[in-house]
Amino acid sequence: MLGAMQDWTMRITHVIDHAARESGTREIVTRWADGSETRTDWSGIRTDALKMAQALEALGLKTGDKVASLAMNHSRHLVSWYGVAGMGGVLHTVNPRLFEDQLEYIVNHAEDKVMLYDAMFQPIIDKMRDKWTTVEHYICFDSGDQSQSFEDWIGAQDGAYEWVQGSETDPCMICYTSGTTGNPKGVQYEHRSTVLHALAGLQPAAFNFSSASVMLPVVPMFHAASWGLPYAGAMAGIKFVFSAVNDPAVLHKLMLDEGVTDSAGVPTVWLAHFQYCDKEGIDLPPLKAATIGGSACPRFMIERLMKNGTRVQHAWGMTETSPIGTVGGPTWDWDQLSFEEKVDKTAMQGRPIFGVELRTLDLDDPTKVLPRDGETSGALQIRGPWIIQRYLKAEADAADPEGWFDTGDVGILHPDGTLQLTDRTKDVIKSGGEWISSVELENAAVGHPDVAEAAAIGMYHPKWDERPVLFVVKNEGADISADDVKGYLEGKIATWWMPDAVEFVDDIPHTATGKISKKDLRDRFADYKLEG
Amino acid sequence: MLGAMQDWTMRITHVIDHAARESGTREIVTRWADGSETRTDWSGIRTDALKMAQALEALGLKTGDKVASLAMNHSRHLVSWYGVAGMGGVLHTVNPRLFEDQLEYIVNHAEDKVMLYDAMFQPIIDKMRDKWTTVEHYICFDSGDQSQSFEDWIGAQDGAYEWVQGSETDPCMICYTSGTTGNPKGVQYEHRSTVLHALAGLQPAAFNFSSASVMLPVVPMFHAASWGLPYAGAMAGIKFVFSAVNDPAVLHKLMLDEGVTDSAGVPTVWLAHFQYCDKEGIDLPPLKAATIGGSACPRFMIERLMKNGTRVQHAWGMTETSPIGTVGGPTWDWDQLSFEEKVDKTAMQGRPIFGVELRTLDLDDPTKVLPRDGETSGALQIRGPWIIQRYLKAEADAADPEGWFDTGDVGILHPDGTLQLTDRTKDVIKSGGEWISSVELENAAVGHPDVAEAAAIGMYHPKWDERPVLFVVKNEGADISADDVKGYLEGKIATWWMPDAVEFVDDIPHTATGKISKKDLRDRFADYKLEG
Repeated sequence: MLGAMQDWTMRITHVIDHAARESGTREIVTRWADGSETRTDWSGIRTDALKMAQALEALGLKTGDKVASLAMNHSRHLVSWYGVAGMGGVLHTVNPRLFEDQLEYIVNHAEDKVMLYDAMFQPIIDKMRDKWTTVEHYICFDSGDQSQSFEDWIGAQDGAYEWVQGSETDPCMICYTSGTTGNPKGVQYEHRSTVLHALAGLQPAAFNFSSASVMLPVVPMFHAASWGLPYAGAMAGIKFVFSAVNDPAVLHKLMLDEGVTDSAGVPTVWLAHFQYCDKEGIDLPPLKAATIGGSACPRFMIERLMKNGTRVQHAWGMTETSPIGTVGGPTWDWDQLSFEEKVDKTAMQGRPIFGVELRTLDLDDPTKVLPRDGETSGALQIRGPWIIQRYLKAEADAADPEGWFDTGDVGILHPDGTLQLTDRTKDVIKSGGEWISSVELENAAVGHPDVAEAAAIGMYHPKWDERPVLFVVKNEGADISADDVKGYLEGKIATWWMPDAVEFVDDIPHTATGKISKKDLRDRFADYKLEG
Repeated sequence: MLGAMQDWTMRITHVIDHAARESGTREIVTRWADGSETRTDWSGIRTDALKMAQALEALGLKTGDKVASLAMNHSRHLVSWYGVAGMGGVLHTVNPRLFEDQLEYIVNHAEDKVMLYDAMFQPIIDKMRDKWTTVEHYICFDSGDQSQSFEDWIGAQDGAYEWVQGSETDPCMICYTSGTTGNPKGVQYEHRSTVLHALAGLQPAAFNFSSASVMLPVVPMFHAASWGLPYAGAMAGIKFVFSAVNDPAVLHKLMLDEGVTDSAGVPTVWLAHFQYCDKEGIDLPPLKAATIGGSACPRFMIERLMKNGTRVQHAWGMTETSPIGTVGGPTWDWDQLSFEEKVDKTAMQGRPIFGVELRTLDLDDPTKVLPRDGETSGALQIRGPWIIQRYLKAEADAADPEGWFDTGDVGILHPDGTLQLTDRTKDVIKSGGEWISSVELENAAVGHPDVAEAAAIGMYHPKWDERPVLFVVKNEGADISADDVKGYLEGKIATWWMPDAVEFVDDIPHTATGKISKKDLRDRFADYKLEG
């Protein structure tokens, strides 16, 4: 039957075409690693993307071919998002912080043919070049001392190009997850999933983007598609301010100079920003909103930003979810809440936007779907149009037949739809048939002024099955005992959650993305024994 | 190839499921025609929609069958939007203000099997019943004196129902256009087009919906899907306040009592509201935003609402465009504009949201695409995922092979994407090879305090091809001459736009939707002759 409404293939090329047509002169500012600054606009990004698509075809690349990027946030990286998708290719944004064996694995596994990289990562290129068996071309985004420079490369083209057409479900981007076990796994974003995710991301409950928005994304472009910001921003025609370095002094100056209204990043970004402002004795930048995700945002951070007049949007998602799962904007009862209640609400992970469906399963009996009662915690599952079906080259689906994908997170669903994360499935501690959240123990412990970092893991216990042990890194020069820590925890956690032991360590192991590696911690203390 | 991301069929059932799941207790308030008030919530709407879907199946309705509604805005009408789509049916929202022959034509043409109606429209039902050849069942939304009542009808079901699955491009709603010539034409909205349109409608540049929004839509549910508000509102989980009557006193009280933040309607709604507030000596309601569309919003209305602290969103669209084409929210240079400049900008029709593409063609040479220079006016065309492809039962497409649909409007595109409507293609006046906007002439003329209404049409002129004649309805008791009107127009329009004649008439003919019918005016003055 002929359609009543128009066929319109959801392709990323519509996004950049719209931005260039309707917001062509809206600026894209980049502060480069060498301190220089350049300005282009959505029209310029599109023109360069057309040239880049031509340049890729001139290299012999075909539809479905993979192009890797090893780069920070800047306008040329943005060009590559649209240029690669525009010629029907797939952009693989590589995390430069990965370990060497992971870098080797993912580039070979994705079969990347071109490597676009920042000059600052030349040492990585030099080390990896011989190990990457599929990469045929190296292009340097900035200097080009060792490779052809990006500007010269695309500059040889005239931009007279028609975007490649194709299916909505063609892949356009690959991001690898950096799990704590096994090889990284590739998540392939599709044109359709990307467009829907970005469109949903515009809404007030998510990024709240209008043409007046000025966004400085601190979240790297190699992390879960930079949360989809480069696509959503183009749809709304926002102004982007990119920084290729994350030095708080640089970010702070950019925010003031460029009239930045919105930012997005992990909590540590704000930690560094607070320290910078305190040291300099200056105010925080007057942002309208800060989207914070990647890991839990501490209460004091929420409070300080809120007191600064900045709307804090605590978001949850993962590479497998494009990544927006939930975002915490003001709820409808917001005006009736006290400041404390607002902070409580903001400390949770927010509510799912349209498209995302969540449920929690009993940790002991995964056939049992838990009530949304704001109390019962369970294994969090998610499904929807921008949620993973299958990892790249995997032989089985990552989602079950009904579309439910196991997030590996443990959380509580509240009656108003709010998600409250409490732990990771593999880290939650089972004691006497009941569950203890390792994350909540850690969060309580780091509130102690002498505790720099804390990690709780479950250790075998002959009677209770598992009991929590807290590993603590003291602040420099601090002098505290295990009993001091336990005393501090009293009243802050349920009595039966009290760790059986507090052990002081010099350091706690981390993953490539900076998260605590409980796996490595468990390995290190494999012989640890609790007294019965 | 197996998908990397999940298959997820864009169906309207996802919208109501999401609203009930995530915002189940968010209220839907109705003020009925008899003065009573009822309250339900998104969870209640879904439960009733499930029962209604069952009730429709119990009547023998199948996928693709049409259900008509002849109703004002209320919660039961809302239930039917989701209930009909949920059983795979198609809701045909009938405009009760249509003329009898149009009412007869559209219900028979759509082949509606069920008629849902408000008791206040019983006289229409009584008159049309014998003429409607396909309608088998009559259900009354409220009283049910003459037919089964809606509540009894769905109340007989238990709601244990699974939504009908189907294709994204299945139709879900039909709205007929009420053109000035020929029979009305049916526009079929599809599940996919409706979901995309609603998702795009959430963004700050459109309805700006978050869970905190409280919307009283004055635009009827039988007008172009009430601009998609019932879908977008469900996606964001807003509170809806419906009124089955449009009395300004009722609307005003509801806005204050229910904490309404947003409204949407045609300009005359606000005209009546201004008059009411002036008469009562009270302030306008403290709305955050008013979306105004359907016809051009006068400057004084924009000014008054803006001074009231209400963001005015001047929108343009038509039944064939779902209807959002452009919406005028603040542009990125907003803060730098003077109040006058803001009003100027707001008086235009706004900018296309992502998904919508516009162009203008030379009125003399339709092969020539005009520049977006903010000066040249031309025939406006539109394309995108929620734009019509083909009218119901038509034998040819309404859009050209590239998807361009002729809107019949004449407009100017500005470099920043803003659309400025100037006329209708069939009303614009061609004089000596140049075009004169009949609408601008009319708008200038109605600024005269003694002019109640004005309509300009082009009359044959032996030398200039056409010259404008202005037909004027005087205010009661006013005593003005043609020269007075011309004198008033001087300086407000280009000198060569000055009407060759000003004719006073007792009335100007209107269409069923209240627009000036230039066709009828031309017919009435078919023998009119201008002196050469």
